[in-house]
Amino acid sequence: MPGRQTVRFGGDYNPEQWPREVWDEDIRLMQDAGVNLVSIGIFSWALLEPEEGVYDFAMLDEIIDRLHAADIDVDLATPTASPPAWFYRRYPHSRAVTRDGMPLAFGSRGIVSPSSPEYRRAATAIAAKLAERYAQHPAVVLWHVHNEYGTPVTESYDDASVTAFQTWLRKRYASLDALNAAWGTNFWGQRYGAWEEIDAPRTSGTASNPAHRLDFARFSSAALLECFKAERDAIREHAPQPITTNFMAGMCPSVDLWRWADEVDIVANDHYLSAEQPDNHIHLSRAADLTRSLARGKPWILMEHSTSAVNWQPRNIAKRPGEMRRNSLAHAARGADAVLFFQVRAGQKGAEKFHSALIPQAGETSRKWRESVALGADVAALAPLFGSRVDARVAIAWDWESFWAQDLDWRPSVDLDHRERIEAFYAALWRRGVTVDFVHPAADLTGYDVVFAPALYLIEDDAAANLREYAAQGGTLAFSYFSGIVSTNDDVPTGPYPGQLRDVLGLVIEEFLPLRAGEQVTLSDGRRGRVWSDDIELRGATSVAEFADGPGVGRPAVTKHSFGDGAAWYLATALDGADLDGFVTRVLDSAAVDYSPLGDVESVVRRGDGVDYVFQINHGAQDAGAGISGHDLLTDKSVASDDPVRAGSVRVVAVRHGQP
Amino acid sequence: MPGRQTVRFGGDYNPEQWPREVWDEDIRLMQDAGVNLVSIGIFSWALLEPEEGVYDFAMLDEIIDRLHAADIDVDLATPTASPPAWFYRRYPHSRAVTRDGMPLAFGSRGIVSPSSPEYRRAATAIAAKLAERYAQHPAVVLWHVHNEYGTPVTESYDDASVTAFQTWLRKRYASLDALNAAWGTNFWGQRYGAWEEIDAPRTSGTASNPAHRLDFARFSSAALLECFKAERDAIREHAPQPITTNFMAGMCPSVDLWRWADEVDIVANDHYLSAEQPDNHIHLSRAADLTRSLARGKPWILMEHSTSAVNWQPRNIAKRPGEMRRNSLAHAARGADAVLFFQVRAGQKGAEKFHSALIPQAGETSRKWRESVALGADVAALAPLFGSRVDARVAIAWDWESFWAQDLDWRPSVDLDHRERIEAFYAALWRRGVTVDFVHPAADLTGYDVVFAPALYLIEDDAAANLREYAAQGGTLAFSYFSGIVSTNDDVPTGPYPGQLRDVLGLVIEEFLPLRAGEQVTLSDGRRGRVWSDDIELRGATSVAEFADGPGVGRPAVTKHSFGDGAAWYLATALDGADLDGFVTRVLDSAAVDYSPLGDVESVVRRGDGVDYVFQINHGAQDAGAGISGHDLLTDKSVASDDPVRAGSVRVVAVRHGQP
Amino acid sequence: MPGRQTVRFGGDYNPEQWPREVWDEDIRLMQDAGVNLVSIGIFSWALLEPEEGVYDFAMLDEIIDRLHAADIDVDLATPTASPPAWFYRRYPHSRAVTRDGMPLAFGSRGIVSPSSPEYRRAATAIAAKLAERYAQHPAVVLWHVHNEYGTPVTESYDDASVTAFQTWLRKRYASLDALNAAWGTNFWGQRYGAWEEIDAPRTSGTASNPAHRLDFARFSSAALLECFKAERDAIREHAPQPITTNFMAGMCPSVDLWRWADEVDIVANDHYLSAEQPDNHIHLSRAADLTRSLARGKPWILMEHSTSAVNWQPRNIAKRPGEMRRNSLAHAARGADAVLFFQVRAGQKGAEKFHSALIPQAGETSRKWRESVALGADVAALAPLFGSRVDARVAIAWDWESFWAQDLDWRPSVDLDHRERIEAFYAALWRRGVTVDFVHPAADLTGYDVVFAPALYLIEDDAAANLREYAAQGGTLAFSYFSGIVSTNDDVPTGPYPGQLRDVLGLVIEEFLPLRAGEQVTLSDGRRGRVWSDDIELRGATSVAEFADGPGVGRPAVTKHSFGDGAAWYLATALDGADLDGFVTRVLDSAAVDYSPLGDVESVVRRGDGVDYVFQINHGAQDAGAGISGHDLLTDKSVASDDPVRAGSVRVVAVRHGQP
Repeated sequence: MPGRQTVRFGGDYNPEQWPREVWDEDIRLMQDAGVNLVSIGIFSWALLEPEEGVYDFAMLDEIIDRLHAADIDVDLATPTASPPAWFYRRYPHSRAVTRDGMPLAFGSRGIVSPSSPEYRRAATAIAAKLAERYAQHPAVVLWHVHNEYGTPVTESYDDASVTAFQTWLRKRYASLDALNAAWGTNFWGQRYGAWEEIDAPRTSGTASNPAHRLDFARFSSAALLECFKAERDAIREHAPQPITTNFMAGMCPSVDLWRWADEVDIVANDHYLSAEQPDNHIHLSRAADLTRSLARGKPWILMEHSTSAVNWQPRNIAKRPGEMRRNSLAHAARGADAVLFFQVRAGQKGAEKFHSALIPQAGETSRKWRESVALGADVAALAPLFGSRVDARVAIAWDWESFWAQDLDWRPSVDLDHRERIEAFYAALWRRGVTVDFVHPAADLTGYDVVFAPALYLIEDDAAANLREYAAQGGTLAFSYFSGIVSTNDDVPTGPYPGQLRDVLGLVIEEFLPLRAGEQVTLSDGRRGRVWSDDIELRGATSVAEFADGPGVGRPAVTKHSFGDGAAWYLATALDGADLDGFVTRVLDSAAVDYSPLGDVESVVRRGDGVDYVFQINHGAQDAGAGISGHDLLTDKSVASDDPVRAGSVRVVAVRHGQP
Repeated sequence: MPGRQTVRFGGDYNPEQWPREVWDEDIRLMQDAGVNLVSIGIFSWALLEPEEGVYDFAMLDEIIDRLHAADIDVDLATPTASPPAWFYRRYPHSRAVTRDGMPLAFGSRGIVSPSSPEYRRAATAIAAKLAERYAQHPAVVLWHVHNEYGTPVTESYDDASVTAFQTWLRKRYASLDALNAAWGTNFWGQRYGAWEEIDAPRTSGTASNPAHRLDFARFSSAALLECFKAERDAIREHAPQPITTNFMAGMCPSVDLWRWADEVDIVANDHYLSAEQPDNHIHLSRAADLTRSLARGKPWILMEHSTSAVNWQPRNIAKRPGEMRRNSLAHAARGADAVLFFQVRAGQKGAEKFHSALIPQAGETSRKWRESVALGADVAALAPLFGSRVDARVAIAWDWESFWAQDLDWRPSVDLDHRERIEAFYAALWRRGVTVDFVHPAADLTGYDVVFAPALYLIEDDAAANLREYAAQGGTLAFSYFSGIVSTNDDVPTGPYPGQLRDVLGLVIEEFLPLRAGEQVTLSDGRRGRVWSDDIELRGATSVAEFADGPGVGRPAVTKHSFGDGAAWYLATALDGADLDGFVTRVLDSAAVDYSPLGDVESVVRRGDGVDYVFQINHGAQDAGAGISGHDLLTDKSVASDDPVRAGSVRVVAVRHGQP
Repeated sequence: MPGRQTVRFGGDYNPEQWPREVWDEDIRLMQDAGVNLVSIGIFSWALLEPEEGVYDFAMLDEIIDRLHAADIDVDLATPTASPPAWFYRRYPHSRAVTRDGMPLAFGSRGIVSPSSPEYRRAATAIAAKLAERYAQHPAVVLWHVHNEYGTPVTESYDDASVTAFQTWLRKRYASLDALNAAWGTNFWGQRYGAWEEIDAPRTSGTASNPAHRLDFARFSSAALLECFKAERDAIREHAPQPITTNFMAGMCPSVDLWRWADEVDIVANDHYLSAEQPDNHIHLSRAADLTRSLARGKPWILMEHSTSAVNWQPRNIAKRPGEMRRNSLAHAARGADAVLFFQVRAGQKGAEKFHSALIPQAGETSRKWRESVALGADVAALAPLFGSRVDARVAIAWDWESFWAQDLDWRPSVDLDHRERIEAFYAALWRRGVTVDFVHPAADLTGYDVVFAPALYLIEDDAAANLREYAAQGGTLAFSYFSGIVSTNDDVPTGPYPGQLRDVLGLVIEEFLPLRAGEQVTLSDGRRGRVWSDDIELRGATSVAEFADGPGVGRPAVTKHSFGDGAAWYLATALDGADLDGFVTRVLDSAAVDYSPLGDVESVVRRGDGVDYVFQINHGAQDAGAGISGHDLLTDKSVASDDPVRAGSVRVVAVRHGQP
């Protein structure tokens, strides 16, 4: 991003909701808090283009100038997540349609068909107009296309989407014979004789063809990406600044962000706590690690998070004193070079008026505002680490396409839950103090000591080869159950399960043995499993533990297979808590990974040029976490090795390389 | 109502379901039971107008004459809750449409669009025809328009409703700028450029604009009221008798009965127990008090209740011996001058055939029929109190518009529940023996010692001024949490919460602190709260109790503020049972309200001319409730001050004013 | 079925999903396992008729010839459960439509409107073509029309269905007056003035007319049966082999199989365990007994069951070793002369790829395949009992029309559950060792000692007369609550409940007394009831036990009435476990029924010509069940009277008549 080399602080700013006198106050307060970047224009389409083809930029001109005068940079958004009322009235067929056939009405946001030609034309036009007008404005340092692609709707079953899907399929398969073979349409008599016969996979009487649904999910993610690219390219014709869009990594399951990451100039992410979860700080870390992984390790922008409660969860729990600070700095610890919020000023009208903000409803005298100002100072103090990176020696496999496939109908057990398993493995690694990258299974795995794959149902052939090669070259793989079962089109390879992993795991599964609701099984090492077991036949692997009871009694539950210079582990049931920690520990130890288990103090390192910035975040109610010495960026004071981190507090200790 | 000055007894009568010989039996049995008023014609449209514009009144002529000959008066209904099959076939666009876009089919009842011009024309025409024909019939003492407006459907998303909504909005706002400002359409880019762009707030991808939804709720209630007024006016052109419609106060949340109450000549209500609830007699009292409040204290008609089980609850629990009597007399105690039932004779076909009736399926030899006859005699014995009134010194604020607003999407906690809170406060007052009125917050509050507002999220500016003035003049207000948060259009006033109540409460709320699912907090006085807490900063109020734990630890939980000559209390969490009783007691005591806590014997007074009629209803299994002397209307015997009320029984003791 | 006089073994075979080399392997493996019958062509329409009116039988010719060469007979299916994609594209109005108005899309199976004239024409045409071509093929021994009529959709609300429904109603009622009377349309003003006004009973604002819904259920079942008959008749014009279709007795509640049973040449059934249920073997027995009852006692075909897990249950529990064998032989024990599976080879693509098969995904080396082969040998060993029958002296009343009626809206309690009650009574009889037939209440009951009717809400007048005559002639009836309440059109007969049974039961019910959620009542004999009680007045019956508490306290809970030469019992509450066993035992003893209570060893007899085949199935983990001597068909060895059945095993002991 052009301009200052510092960690950015600010948020979404929607001045159109207030009169000019409030703008004055906003800018004053933002200056007080050290805000240096705001995102504007996200929902301004109806103001900027009050009638089709008629533009009015007066409001935007004014606010950008005012911000610039206040030395606040602008992340200028295209407003295309929310077409105006006139658009829906003129082009009702552009509405998104649900799988059940209901058109979604105007009145919220994000509910247009991504394949509507009218929408694409209108969105590209307004993006181009904005770029043309503001490309040279010195305040504008970043372009923000659209808002949270994929929410609330990714798949649309409107007519334009069906036509675009047919086109996408023609390109993917070239011939109907290839499509019929890939989808297995001879099952249930679903063979297609013409491209025009292929509909979107609408609600039918019972389960639809899974390959059909999986391809529609792929198409839908791709259709949104086409929208992004069209706007991006229209902006690029006029404007030199970097262009991004705000991902919802970890929150929006329906877009394949690996593909998107290649198309943005800088990765940006929105993150919100699931505030009722007791370990929501671990979930935060996971989202941040995933975002950094999408950014291929480069610094990224935390485009939105919240100063306190949101408004759309069942119970919108407020953050306690210190929690916003810990959250913000935890993102920075894992690679964020910008700490931005939704939103600068709390709304007074509309659907999100109960969402927290930098400037709260309670105003300047409130504790919340004092915390906002203090956080601005903290972020400013992080300037030295701008551009530094985070290293990870352990990775977790993450593939949206596999998740889409696993979530389709009629899997062996409704208790199969890739999200829960990945979260469980991540938490076990977090507790071990292991910083984790997320990787696509077909990506370059060189440099990782261990790759965990807690739930990787679908593995395409290239990914299977990649994993095999990784192990052969010395890597350690650790799979959990129901992995490697299908290939590209939800198709089971010939021969016993897991067809994509038999050789690398050194075993075959004669039969899945899912457990009953609430059923538990015991392993020979005393651990307790849930959800799943397998009827395993070893083909080279050794059994590390067996099922001591349950339907798989006597059969292997944990196996290890030496493969080339590496190894592959398999875990045939769902372990929790200390039992899962034990499995993870064993795998890490087998690969000689270094780690220091955490108590309440999260510890992450950003590596700069000759200096490590050690973030220590104390999530507990006791002072803890001594053992490091250096200079705390936040207090600008020295830290001695017996100084603990105060309860609930954070420090960022700069440690010169070579220093203990 | 013209005619006899006595408490009425009877019910809905549907002779069209039976042959003439059953009519003879019905009339004989009604005479045996002392029935003196029946409602007829409620579902007779298809018989009265078998083809559009073709009328056949033969059946109605005959039954009215027969009833008249038997000295049974008639409440004659317009049949407009159920247009005939030909109407739906000819005018399919008149069907009501759900928010999801599904037209509701013919085959049940009450499912026409209230804004359909064809429906309005047809309904007014049949009403006029009936009035013209029967205005002079001596049996007809009352007109009953339609049936249970608002159930099962209030809001309809058909085209005619959309057009009527636009017209309603033009009238309310005059300009689009005013509407855009009121609705806050700049949020999420929802600005309207033409009235025609404004749709009904159909299902969208995520939360719709709350002001849009709130206005549609207002419009929908008003559209039904327009239907009523059109029929009423058509009747009035011909007929002199009073005109009413049967409310479902407390059961149908979607019509604003404060507005309706001004349009009927006499208030009538339908009430059904939620039979599985153990304290359903308290719920009954609440509904009766609300009905009396709608009637501005005047006597009212209990148009429908049930002799025993209904048919539409999950488990249709039958009333035990004595329960129908207690229920009926409890309504009379709280102001009903008519005790009518759905229905005279139990059905044998159709959707409600398992609904109880005065004449049960089991016939004349059954216990149920004997109870019907006995109740008829009881009601006849109430004649002396006809026209007497009920006094209340305590009120509870009740505003349908506030409830609609609070029930919209994305509030701070799904556990916010105005209905549950009002029921809890009402029950606490009931247990204290306090008779309660319900009041609109903008209504005249003079004469009440205390006004409780257990859940009053939306307070319009005039209501806020009214409440302030009430306290300033010496009244005592008692608010619970999440009150006074928004004004007319679900808009948050500038400044800290609660914007509509900051001054009168003498506090500000820095932040809402909703609790987690199942979480409890302790107060400094030992009480236990659920659901909610606030981060309160006192601005004049004093803290009566603080949070001893939880997110608001150390902050006020109960406050009291002297304001002018009065006071305002605030309770920041959900108390239950004895804890809530304690709070209510403290408020009552602070206002020097007189009350006598009840055990099992409910006690309510109707005040006549020089005489009090003390209803004593023993809901328990033991004799209880002595301490009063006078003359029991039901037994026509003297009651001495040491005579208890028998277990499960009722007495109505006439006590001359001045008598102890 | 023409050809070999032996119990058949095989399953559904879908060669179109694989290349020719897999066909070779399939046939080899089928021969290894003793397969002698396969069903083919079930989902082949798109292959056989790639364009409308263009046929291609090459694939089918080839596979039938290959199977014939391998001495495997063919059950040739019409593919009409799954019209091709071109059909849906050309005739979109032929799609089935839900009650809410949503057309069900192509993409699964079984989702066409049964009343579509285009569908009927197309289905009959392909059936005729197949019959013409393969009628003389020596491999074809059976015709299999369609697949699982009624799943996933029976009722369709499309236009063609509405028209056909009107036609069906004209035929049933002849006049609108008759229809209006039967449906009670004067209730809620629903009188029809023209046949065209009668729609399908779509979703309305609240409960629809129950008689309307019941007739639509009858029509919908009949419409499917018309489809079957049209295809059957088209085949019969060309082909002499028996014609069947695969029922889902006990799994598909929406088709009245009593009517279907008269139209098939041989009854065939599909059965799947509800695998998570701990007593799923008892549920299996019930389904098998129901199927035999549909076959009027004649041997029947188990057309589909599963070798292990299915794929469409929440948790698809695999069968443990020995379980497939016990399941298969239990069906044979109760009358099946064919043991067939879905499916021969496990799929690799499509919605059912995780369904088990004779040839599992794990291939020839797996335990599952070895069990398949062993089972083939077992089935072959059953040849001597081919054609033998099963006797039952006790019956349970079963009437789909009654179930449809009871399942409509607004019954006295949501806890009324005919299925649960029938299952409970069946299990009690199973535990007593009593083999049971199911009977329609209007069917010939001669020959049964006892007829239980655990939940028979609707009893038509002829059935009521039949039951009365049965008791009068010496039979014993045993009814549970909420029986005999309505007649043909969900109409309550005049007078107290139960109008259809008052005389035979010798009692009247003054009022239903359903219990609260979770409420229990105690009987005077100590038993505990749930769900229900009645306020019973005896009219000739004697009270066997009374309610000791609850709303019916002091009233009869169990009654017995001598009626003619027989007797009728009534049970007014839901008993479970040992309490229900006690009631059942008492009824059986009163009718002097012989029985031997079972432990883990199920025992059923097929009676051949001069020889009994005693199936002994040990469901337990201990050897048990000695006491019989003869010759075990499965081991071809003698069984002595002290030889137990091995844990988990089965034996089929041939015992000459007269032998102990």
